[in-house]
Amino acid sequence: MASKTMRALVKERAGTGLSLRDVSVPAPGPTDVLVRVRKAGICGTDGHIWAWDRWAQGRLRLPVVVGHEFMGTVEDVGSAVVGVKPGDRVSGEGHISCGACLLCRTGQAYICERVKIAGVDRDGCFADYIALPEQNIWRLDPTVPDDWAAVFDPLGNAVHTVMTAGVSAKSVVITGVGSIGLMAIPVARAAGATKVIAVDLNPHKLALAKRLGADEAFDARMADLEETVRGLTNGDGADVLLEMSGSGAAINSGLRMVRNGGRAALLGLPSDDVSLNLAESIIMKGLTVLGINGRRMFETWYQTQSLVVAGRIDLTPIITHVIPLERYEECFDLLREGAAAKIVMEIA
Amino acid sequence: MASKTMRALVKERAGTGLSLRDVSVPAPGPTDVLVRVRKAGICGTDGHIWAWDRWAQGRLRLPVVVGHEFMGTVEDVGSAVVGVKPGDRVSGEGHISCGACLLCRTGQAYICERVKIAGVDRDGCFADYIALPEQNIWRLDPTVPDDWAAVFDPLGNAVHTVMTAGVSAKSVVITGVGSIGLMAIPVARAAGATKVIAVDLNPHKLALAKRLGADEAFDARMADLEETVRGLTNGDGADVLLEMSGSGAAINSGLRMVRNGGRAALLGLPSDDVSLNLAESIIMKGLTVLGINGRRMFETWYQTQSLVVAGRIDLTPIITHVIPLERYEECFDLLREGAAAKIVMEIA
Amino acid sequence: MASKTMRALVKERAGTGLSLRDVSVPAPGPTDVLVRVRKAGICGTDGHIWAWDRWAQGRLRLPVVVGHEFMGTVEDVGSAVVGVKPGDRVSGEGHISCGACLLCRTGQAYICERVKIAGVDRDGCFADYIALPEQNIWRLDPTVPDDWAAVFDPLGNAVHTVMTAGVSAKSVVITGVGSIGLMAIPVARAAGATKVIAVDLNPHKLALAKRLGADEAFDARMADLEETVRGLTNGDGADVLLEMSGSGAAINSGLRMVRNGGRAALLGLPSDDVSLNLAESIIMKGLTVLGINGRRMFETWYQTQSLVVAGRIDLTPIITHVIPLERYEECFDLLREGAAAKIVMEIA
Amino acid sequence: MASKTMRALVKERAGTGLSLRDVSVPAPGPTDVLVRVRKAGICGTDGHIWAWDRWAQGRLRLPVVVGHEFMGTVEDVGSAVVGVKPGDRVSGEGHISCGACLLCRTGQAYICERVKIAGVDRDGCFADYIALPEQNIWRLDPTVPDDWAAVFDPLGNAVHTVMTAGVSAKSVVITGVGSIGLMAIPVARAAGATKVIAVDLNPHKLALAKRLGADEAFDARMADLEETVRGLTNGDGADVLLEMSGSGAAINSGLRMVRNGGRAALLGLPSDDVSLNLAESIIMKGLTVLGINGRRMFETWYQTQSLVVAGRIDLTPIITHVIPLERYEECFDLLREGAAAKIVMEIA
Repeated sequence: MASKTMRALVKERAGTGLSLRDVSVPAPGPTDVLVRVRKAGICGTDGHIWAWDRWAQGRLRLPVVVGHEFMGTVEDVGSAVVGVKPGDRVSGEGHISCGACLLCRTGQAYICERVKIAGVDRDGCFADYIALPEQNIWRLDPTVPDDWAAVFDPLGNAVHTVMTAGVSAKSVVITGVGSIGLMAIPVARAAGATKVIAVDLNPHKLALAKRLGADEAFDARMADLEETVRGLTNGDGADVLLEMSGSGAAINSGLRMVRNGGRAALLGLPSDDVSLNLAESIIMKGLTVLGINGRRMFETWYQTQSLVVAGRIDLTPIITHVIPLERYEECFDLLREGAAAKIVMEIA
Repeated sequence: MASKTMRALVKERAGTGLSLRDVSVPAPGPTDVLVRVRKAGICGTDGHIWAWDRWAQGRLRLPVVVGHEFMGTVEDVGSAVVGVKPGDRVSGEGHISCGACLLCRTGQAYICERVKIAGVDRDGCFADYIALPEQNIWRLDPTVPDDWAAVFDPLGNAVHTVMTAGVSAKSVVITGVGSIGLMAIPVARAAGATKVIAVDLNPHKLALAKRLGADEAFDARMADLEETVRGLTNGDGADVLLEMSGSGAAINSGLRMVRNGGRAALLGLPSDDVSLNLAESIIMKGLTVLGINGRRMFETWYQTQSLVVAGRIDLTPIITHVIPLERYEECFDLLREGAAAKIVMEIA
Repeated sequence: MASKTMRALVKERAGTGLSLRDVSVPAPGPTDVLVRVRKAGICGTDGHIWAWDRWAQGRLRLPVVVGHEFMGTVEDVGSAVVGVKPGDRVSGEGHISCGACLLCRTGQAYICERVKIAGVDRDGCFADYIALPEQNIWRLDPTVPDDWAAVFDPLGNAVHTVMTAGVSAKSVVITGVGSIGLMAIPVARAAGATKVIAVDLNPHKLALAKRLGADEAFDARMADLEETVRGLTNGDGADVLLEMSGSGAAINSGLRMVRNGGRAALLGLPSDDVSLNLAESIIMKGLTVLGINGRRMFETWYQTQSLVVAGRIDLTPIITHVIPLERYEECFDLLREGAAAKIVMEIA
Repeated sequence: MASKTMRALVKERAGTGLSLRDVSVPAPGPTDVLVRVRKAGICGTDGHIWAWDRWAQGRLRLPVVVGHEFMGTVEDVGSAVVGVKPGDRVSGEGHISCGACLLCRTGQAYICERVKIAGVDRDGCFADYIALPEQNIWRLDPTVPDDWAAVFDPLGNAVHTVMTAGVSAKSVVITGVGSIGLMAIPVARAAGATKVIAVDLNPHKLALAKRLGADEAFDARMADLEETVRGLTNGDGADVLLEMSGSGAAINSGLRMVRNGGRAALLGLPSDDVSLNLAESIIMKGLTVLGINGRRMFETWYQTQSLVVAGRIDLTPIITHVIPLERYEECFDLLREGAAAKIVMEIA
């Protein structure tokens, strides 16, 4: 069994910042799995918690251990756990769904209304140990590199978005190439996209987008952006939009770049209401707009691992920093500055 | 061949109103069909043209014969027409698509960017004769009543919306029960909906909705509307929203009434931009939002006719007025007053 | 807690027949639910077990309590059960899936390769009590009649077949109207079918098919059956085939009755290999053939209950016999004779 | 206008062989396009016509110009042709559908029951000129190499099969790697397959399969083939089967290699009935079996061209021979010997 206490990055009280503290190692219940965390990814959500923004203030009940992207080794399992054993190398789904509602019972657990999110609604993974229900554990193929396994959660967001949109033999515009938008580039190519066009404001991200396989990477402020995209797509507009910025301007522009009858998958969360020309941008065009949340449990995980194991995607250029837990403040500085793509914390 | 001139309801010049004039009978080209119009439905679009609103001013080039919902008898056919002959009893698709673009060549002609609409972009059916390409002609089953055949166009809008949303064994909320929303009630029931909830502001339309088979009919201003709908749908929210009002308030409310993972089909055209809480109403909920335009060519027409011929839907309560062409001003008065559900003009 | 022993219909040894015995009441594990069985449906599978045919000999390990269709009242629950409590009126899914494989983790538990079936691979419901995992319990809406609740399992087969095929605004041929085929008639109509054509050899079943809403009911030996069906479907052939006989001749004939591009859902299990003209019946026609097994967990259960609660289907004509458990031999005599449609045993 | 006579490879009379003859240049009707053929692919169907097998004897009315895969330059257009002009570089869809039936009017023209096939039911492309309806003409992107354009028809078969099956992030078994099966390898990879396993009897084709990107290539007679495929697919079986051999043994084996809930697309045409264990291979497994015929008009053509233009597939290794029309007997010798993958005839 694990030692009694462990290091954990805790949101202790209202206000900015997080604290590295010694806390009790979680005790797994009969159907739970205790994981020794080895690496953990830092998500924009963690930044919101650090900054203690309006969303964080409304959602979190403190104190809570932060973090939801990770990989590690199974340390211990509850008495009723049957499919996972100590020593297994694993990642985990951080959305713990209720298991009893219509959505959970019909394969849509990823949008369960009673979901609890690790690192938000219950203790998370920026710690030496995390406990999760067996159902949420994902056993890793031995060929998956540790750093990539640590970010299967956001990679899964990208895969879920791409696969729900459907990109085989299609042209794709991605608005917003933060870390998930960047991941969506190799994922879309691997999933069959014939053209990938990245749009963002940040020239470093756009350069990285090209490196990751985007056919084109455009500044969102380019004067004739929408016409240019039309020109690159036989005059029709793109078959698919993957919206990953959450910006109202990007959503409006993105919808205009999709062809009639196309599909738009929205993953980025706008912080405010967005005004849309519904008649022209969606209704008259016969568009299909798809709200995307989390990862399909566990279809997305199978797809994600199969893409990685098959060598169809390369995350190396995206994981720009690997930094020990102790230097967590440096991680959050980098996150704020937008200088990093994906930061992984080394915990053990 | 037809006589040289005919009666036609013409938009001659800017400003309100229409004029009943004698104009030339259209000459069908080699691939066209000339139809002797017998009955024609009046659409909200015709009201916009009468009123000469902003949309009409921007779109129409005058003069133009108005009207696009009709049935009649084939009078004459062009030399290259092979599948239609004089005497055939027909209705017709008023959207004339280009036939050559990506959309037309992949079964999505209903959203062709170069579409011309009869009664809007070219001469329509409020006249003794209309000419249409053979491709746009729909041969009527002999069991379809004339009055119903005259409104296959808006009935097709309802069918297209219902079938795209998918309602089999599902609960359905319809926001806006104007004539198409009303039609959607028996169509949704016939297509397999297990619960149909109508929402509108107009008590007469709500009463008619109940008569047409809605399980519930609610005033949109009801204080606890969204909670009530939840209560009627096992606490989950409705599986499907059919938005047929074009009202921003209804769209926002409707999206809140749909369950996570549900589908929302938008047919009503907002006249202005609509502000939406995209994060909560669409993205987090994993909703699928479907822009609906026109009718699938010609899948919707097959579905529409099969539902009518099978006796699965009854339009009798919806066609509240049948009025001769000469009394067209009375028709448009009724339309403006909102007193009528569907008005059919008797032309021959 | 329940009494120590109970009555149970047991397959004790090789050879025909079943025995009514006193056996121990099952002891529910921590995640199990113990149900006091009140009514139970008899399935063709139970007949195979009675007859001890080749399939039964190969599959069953004796002794085993038979039966898998039932309804009853929760008597007791294991310590880890959270969503079900004593007194709940329930039915249950008899397929106990492994929970850990690709299929179970991606919403396809109904085709889990390691499934155990109640009454086949583990003790079933022809007894005073049955124990099932909480996950398999279905809570009944109070408006569902007991006799109907007892046959939610085969009704679910019918619903799963109809919903997978997709029948909204479509014409449907059902080959084989045994009890599930008969149930499929009102289900298909409720789900939106515009024409339902039943085909069977048994005139009593065909008469019952008409009573249940089939538009046509034909003897499978009718000389011009396939041409007749074409004539009833605009010369195209039926949109959908629901194959519920398991007869090779019916499958071949049924596939010929489907139109090009149509869908054929196969539920009936042939006991031998079937020879098919794949080129003409499936490949050239661009058919979609769907293997159907069990019920979607638990999408089918939601659909089934919603159809019943909405009053869209009536099973009264199908449940031809309700007979006390003690007279089980009479039930199996009726089953063998083909005189009954659906037999329900009254247990408590 | 073209010269009055031209060279054409004609099936003149019953018996083996074809004749190179001078025949009249076809006169295009008002909606037709006359194409100067430059290159043409040889299909297995052409081999059946050469050999005058049972199928050919039953289907063809002689004499007929053979051949249906081609590319060339538009020589002349009929008076009503609007979207194609002399000088355009084109390929063409050889299935001329009726345009008026349910299938043609609902986007399924590729399975029109009244289809006429160029080179089978009407004069084909092994000639200096071919006339086709404008609707059947496909304008080529300038970057498509001539030899590849000449085989867009069979490449389209492969694309239609792959896209209908759906291979994004899936494992795929291809049974039968003749020329279309070989093409399906790069197509499946480009469309997103994460693993491609080829199965055939011919070691040369298997070697070519590996060169084209198959992860594995197995002899169909390998003792433990099905277990091996399971082992390569996490023990589940392949997600998708693409059956391209038409062999009954391969179909049975292929179905066993697909996982429960998987999809099997059948393109290869068995010459005789095939005996299947429907219960175990399709029904219990919940398989979806898709009959594949021709190419979607014209969705498949858009997909095919987009894959080629994007550089996602390379046909170079498949087009093993390019031979002048005059040496047509050599082509058919090669075809019979199975030594060639794809043979292209040079006509102009």
